[in-house]
Amino acid sequence: MKALAVLSGGLDSTVALAQSLQTKSPVTHAVFFDYGSKHTAREYIAACLVANHYNIPLTRVCLPFSSWGFKSNLLAGQGEIPEGHYEDETMRSTVVPFRNGIMLAIAAGMAESLELDGILIGSHFGDHAVYPDCRQSFNVPMREAIKAGTYRNITLVTPFALNAKWYIVTEGVRLGVPMELTWSCYKGDDKHCGVCGTCVERKEAFVLAAKNTCKEIIDPTEYAE
Amino acid sequence: MKALAVLSGGLDSTVALAQSLQTKSPVTHAVFFDYGSKHTAREYIAACLVANHYNIPLTRVCLPFSSWGFKSNLLAGQGEIPEGHYEDETMRSTVVPFRNGIMLAIAAGMAESLELDGILIGSHFGDHAVYPDCRQSFNVPMREAIKAGTYRNITLVTPFALNAKWYIVTEGVRLGVPMELTWSCYKGDDKHCGVCGTCVERKEAFVLAAKNTCKEIIDPTEYAE
Repeated sequence: MKALAVLSGGLDSTVALAQSLQTKSPVTHAVFFDYGSKHTAREYIAACLVANHYNIPLTRVCLPFSSWGFKSNLLAGQGEIPEGHYEDETMRSTVVPFRNGIMLAIAAGMAESLELDGILIGSHFGDHAVYPDCRQSFNVPMREAIKAGTYRNITLVTPFALNAKWYIVTEGVRLGVPMELTWSCYKGDDKHCGVCGTCVERKEAFVLAAKNTCKEIIDPTEYAE
Repeated sequence: MKALAVLSGGLDSTVALAQSLQTKSPVTHAVFFDYGSKHTAREYIAACLVANHYNIPLTRVCLPFSSWGFKSNLLAGQGEIPEGHYEDETMRSTVVPFRNGIMLAIAAGMAESLELDGILIGSHFGDHAVYPDCRQSFNVPMREAIKAGTYRNITLVTPFALNAKWYIVTEGVRLGVPMELTWSCYKGDDKHCGVCGTCVERKEAFVLAAKNTCKEIIDPTEYAE
C-alpha cells in the first residue's frame, strides 16, 4: 500500500511522513494546501524543503478560501492571530471551518487518480480542544466516507490522533527528522514569533518531550521572543 | 434552519433547491463548483439562470482538478465522453474521483462561515450504479463527519438519495420548476446531445415520469439527436 500525505510543512505532518517511510504504507506523494493563510508562504517553503529532503513529489493546491466567504483569523486580510496557549478558547478565531475535511476530501480524489491506497494526515490529540475536524468523532466517519466513496476503498491514516504533540517530537528525534526545516508559527514572519498559540505549543512540546523521556532534546527553532 | 445548496444547474440540484423552499430548511445560498468539466460553461449558465429564478445568491468555486492530477473523461482535455446508458459500466470513465465528497466538504466550510445549518445535494438513487460517493454507504458517514467536524453541527440533506430520477421530474412538475433552464449533457455543446449517458437518463426520466404517474409530462429539452 502506498499513500499520499497532506503536508503542511509543520512538525506533525513531517514526522507522520517520516514515520510512514518505515512502514508498509509509505508516502510516495504529498500535497500542500495553500488556502490563503497568513503563514502560507512560510509553510510552503517548509513543505518544499521537507518533501525535497525525503525525495517525495509535492503538489500545491490553491484554495482561495477568503474569496469563497470563509471566515477565520488564520486567513490573510482577516482578524489578528491571538497570543496565548494553543488550547485556549481564544484560538477558536483561528479555526478555518472544516479545513481538514476539505483537505482530506481533495486528497482522497487525488489518491484515487494516482492509484494510491491511503491518505495520511498528522492531526493530533492536542488539536482536539478547538478543532472539531481533528477529533476522532470526525476522523472515524470521515474514514468510512472516504473508504465507501472511492473505487480503491482508500484508507485514511491518522497516526497521531490519540497522541500529544510532545510524543510527535520524540518520534521526530527517533527518526532523525530535520525538525529545523519545519514551520509552525501562525504569524508567518521571518522567524517563529514565539508567542502565538502554535509557537507556544511547539516550544512546550520540545520541553515536555525532554522531560517525559528524561533525554536531552533540543528545540532547533529560532524564536523572535 | 437555513441551508446552502450545491447547485450544478442540472435537474436534480434544481428540483432539490425548489423543494427546500417549501420546507422549514430553505436554501438561502448556493454554490457552483467549476472543476474543469467539458460542460462547465453550460452548467454555469444553467446554475446562474436557476439561482436568479429563485433569487438565491450563487458563489462560483473553481477547482482546477486536471492540474491537480485528477483523471476523468468528464474533464476538459481528457478522454471522450462515452455514449449509452447512464448506468452502463462505460460511464465509469466519467467518474471524477470523490467529487461529491470534495463538494460537500467545501460546502460544509462555507455553510459554517455563512452561519447556515444545512447543506443540500441532489444526488439520487440512479447515480449509485457508477458513482460510489452518491451511495448511502457514503452519505451516512459523510453526514456524521460533517456534523462532528463543524461547530454548528451542520446537517447534510440528501432528499433524493433513495429516489429514481423520474421521481425528481414529477417533483419538478409539481413545484413548477422551470426545467427548461437546467442542463444535463456531459458534452457541453450548444444543445443537449441526446446520446451521452446523462442525456439518455434525462430523456428516460421524463418518459418514466409520464408513464408512472399517468400524466402528460413534456420534456422541454431540445436534443441534437
